[in-house]
Amino acid sequence: MTERSLLGAAPDVVAQAARRTMARCDELAAVTASAGTVERVHLSPEHARANRIAARWMRELGMTTWQDAAGNQVGRLAPRPAGALPSAAVAEHARRDDAPALLLGSHLDTVLDAGRYDGVLGVLMALEVVRLLRVVEGDGDGERAWSPFPFALEVIAFSDEEGTRFGKALLGSSAVAGTWDERWWALTDAEGTTLREAALEFGLDPGRIGEAARRPEELVGYLEAHIEQGPELDRRGESLAIVSSIASARRFQVVVDGEARHAGGTPYDMRRDALLGASEAALAVERLCRAEHHVVGTVGQFEAFPGAVNVVPGQVRFSLDLRGELDAERDRVWDAVALELDGITRARGLRWGWQEVHDAPAVMCAPLLQDVVGAGITTTLRRGADDPVRLFSRAGHDAMAIGAVTDVGMLFLRNPDGVSHHPAESVSEADVALGIRALAESVLRLAAEPRP
Amino acid sequence: MTERSLLGAAPDVVAQAARRTMARCDELAAVTASAGTVERVHLSPEHARANRIAARWMRELGMTTWQDAAGNQVGRLAPRPAGALPSAAVAEHARRDDAPALLLGSHLDTVLDAGRYDGVLGVLMALEVVRLLRVVEGDGDGERAWSPFPFALEVIAFSDEEGTRFGKALLGSSAVAGTWDERWWALTDAEGTTLREAALEFGLDPGRIGEAARRPEELVGYLEAHIEQGPELDRRGESLAIVSSIASARRFQVVVDGEARHAGGTPYDMRRDALLGASEAALAVERLCRAEHHVVGTVGQFEAFPGAVNVVPGQVRFSLDLRGELDAERDRVWDAVALELDGITRARGLRWGWQEVHDAPAVMCAPLLQDVVGAGITTTLRRGADDPVRLFSRAGHDAMAIGAVTDVGMLFLRNPDGVSHHPAESVSEADVALGIRALAESVLRLAAEPRP
Repeated sequence: MTERSLLGAAPDVVAQAARRTMARCDELAAVTASAGTVERVHLSPEHARANRIAARWMRELGMTTWQDAAGNQVGRLAPRPAGALPSAAVAEHARRDDAPALLLGSHLDTVLDAGRYDGVLGVLMALEVVRLLRVVEGDGDGERAWSPFPFALEVIAFSDEEGTRFGKALLGSSAVAGTWDERWWALTDAEGTTLREAALEFGLDPGRIGEAARRPEELVGYLEAHIEQGPELDRRGESLAIVSSIASARRFQVVVDGEARHAGGTPYDMRRDALLGASEAALAVERLCRAEHHVVGTVGQFEAFPGAVNVVPGQVRFSLDLRGELDAERDRVWDAVALELDGITRARGLRWGWQEVHDAPAVMCAPLLQDVVGAGITTTLRRGADDPVRLFSRAGHDAMAIGAVTDVGMLFLRNPDGVSHHPAESVSEADVALGIRALAESVLRLAAEPRP
Repeated sequence: MTERSLLGAAPDVVAQAARRTMARCDELAAVTASAGTVERVHLSPEHARANRIAARWMRELGMTTWQDAAGNQVGRLAPRPAGALPSAAVAEHARRDDAPALLLGSHLDTVLDAGRYDGVLGVLMALEVVRLLRVVEGDGDGERAWSPFPFALEVIAFSDEEGTRFGKALLGSSAVAGTWDERWWALTDAEGTTLREAALEFGLDPGRIGEAARRPEELVGYLEAHIEQGPELDRRGESLAIVSSIASARRFQVVVDGEARHAGGTPYDMRRDALLGASEAALAVERLCRAEHHVVGTVGQFEAFPGAVNVVPGQVRFSLDLRGELDAERDRVWDAVALELDGITRARGLRWGWQEVHDAPAVMCAPLLQDVVGAGITTTLRRGADDPVRLFSRAGHDAMAIGAVTDVGMLFLRNPDGVSHHPAESVSEADVALGIRALAESVLRLAAEPRP
């Protein structure tokens, strides 16, 4: 059954929105620390400039704007006040209403040598959704814009999702979620500048970081549109997907120890070759993950020591990144990998050890928000009885952090060949048009739900 | 059948020779560039000092000594002249005889942080063999020593076998073999000093390098004693072995190319993971070498790039060192490895390439010299019907280079646990005593052979 569109916008209005979004992605790509590539990191001059541009676009939509204590740029449309208010009271209402807000957004920071859509696209699509949904009224003071819902509409452009500058990701959204860790202020960038120093130089007051935090009762939920950063939609010939969850991830540093010996003088049965054991382990990771459909494991760092052409490797150090749709699946794979390493090292007279360097549980998208995103997609694509594609995100997103304070939902857009974190990252304008419409429809569906 | 000893020396004389040899190994270990470790590289002040000490020990045995144009230290005992000669003519004969020489020796240079027996032991054992075999005559001029054979006995202490300083190994023995390459003069050490500059500073004349070369007709052959640098004798509980050949070696640098992709977003069937392909290749090397009994392969250098925890490796570079008793076996393994790499990379959507960086053919020990070394061992160990152990050397030796100009033979001594190129390198005094006796017996057997 095709769901009926709740959105009045004509197709050419949405097409215009997509065109503007693509142009703005290009405009923001030029806000870079390094000409010819895209590089915009936390608390940099480019961060400040991107925030100013985003704030201007927010205000053009009639939004009230501010930069919060974590450097996130926020714009808000208050719900229209009941009845007719005197002009002064209306302005005051727009500034100070305490209606709960639906957050729409993503991040404006980038990796090094980035593409132009990761994060940025979600912020700009949110602005177009607000443009499609807002109510505009004229009165003696000129135009005013309102959220057409009993809740406010906010667009949030997070300051740091990638963690490019200080190593720690999700700084902006963690501040909003109220999960800020005071130890993060001591993190340093490549030049040795601390996060605290960078914040002060940016004009933020570290002592007021708590003011960025939102309370659950202030929020209706969080919806984020993002390119998939994977090839699934492209391979299936689909434009949009519901995100079911954001992958849980664990990262390990593994050390395999053997004995460095002369390559000429040491026959096979006297070797304790760390490289051969570690090679078996890398292949075991692949085999065990393939057996679990929803877990993916990557050995990205791998080096043999001492690393001489005529010495049997005495040690290998490698990293393991495990991501799963569910924590339990991912943990089951790790247990199997560890068991495999026990067997491999026992058979080869090696030892192994490990250290867990990162552990992020899976964040499930709220069932209601999955439903409304699904309905938005179905309506937009006129799918009839076909269920929309549902994917879990193997990459991390701001929604992971925001999940600590409110329900989160995500919409994925097709990402040709899955290329991301790379200048060749792309998305089609046609898919962006579909995405804007689907996200707007999703918000309308959500607003139509009975509120608790 | 136990072969009858040809050597008159009493056991305690041989025991004394072994004790002196061990003490001299300790004495030379103190001739080092770096206190606390053993480090004596080509054309260094320590090289000069070690040569002076060795020359003194040679002269104590009545040998005529010289340092050749490649920095090798040589001592020679001429055959006793027929009949009675006037004193002046005898001295002249000792200096200028043109009898062909049997070379006994090894090298005095070391790796960094070396043990005290690799090379050194072979030179010092050669001196003791000369001491046991020489004929000493008194006359009006005092004592004179002669070779008891129709050929001269020379002890040669090669200046560079390890290649520690200039990267190129076997410099000393290559000069003697007449295979010097003029391009080697441009080789540089870690400080940028060329081999030519170092030779000049050492007091050598690069223009006269050809004078170090020996012609085949000047030589009877070359016999070298050396620690095994492997564990075979230790495992078999044996003291001595005949060396059948010195391993052929080829070294390759292999590059496996895939595609660096985001670890989160890239499902298995879209990955072209260079690490997994290279891991399979490393394991294939082990499997293919184990199938060929006399080939050993080592992947010693191995690193994944870009080497980020969350990026699928796009490239792996690894080294491959292949050693075989016979060139054909070794080459068969390389062909099989290459075929395997073709299959692995095809299956995984990878590419691979290689560069050969070293190629040394196997050098066979001359059958006659294997026989006389075997007879020397059998007599010494009173083995009866048991054949002596016969091993091929997986490590390179001066005999490899000298094989280009004359027949070579080698005697291996037990090397506990096969530890070499390491401060813990060891050999027992008892085995050294057996080795000195066996080497002396070998020379006597050789002298008893009908000369062509």
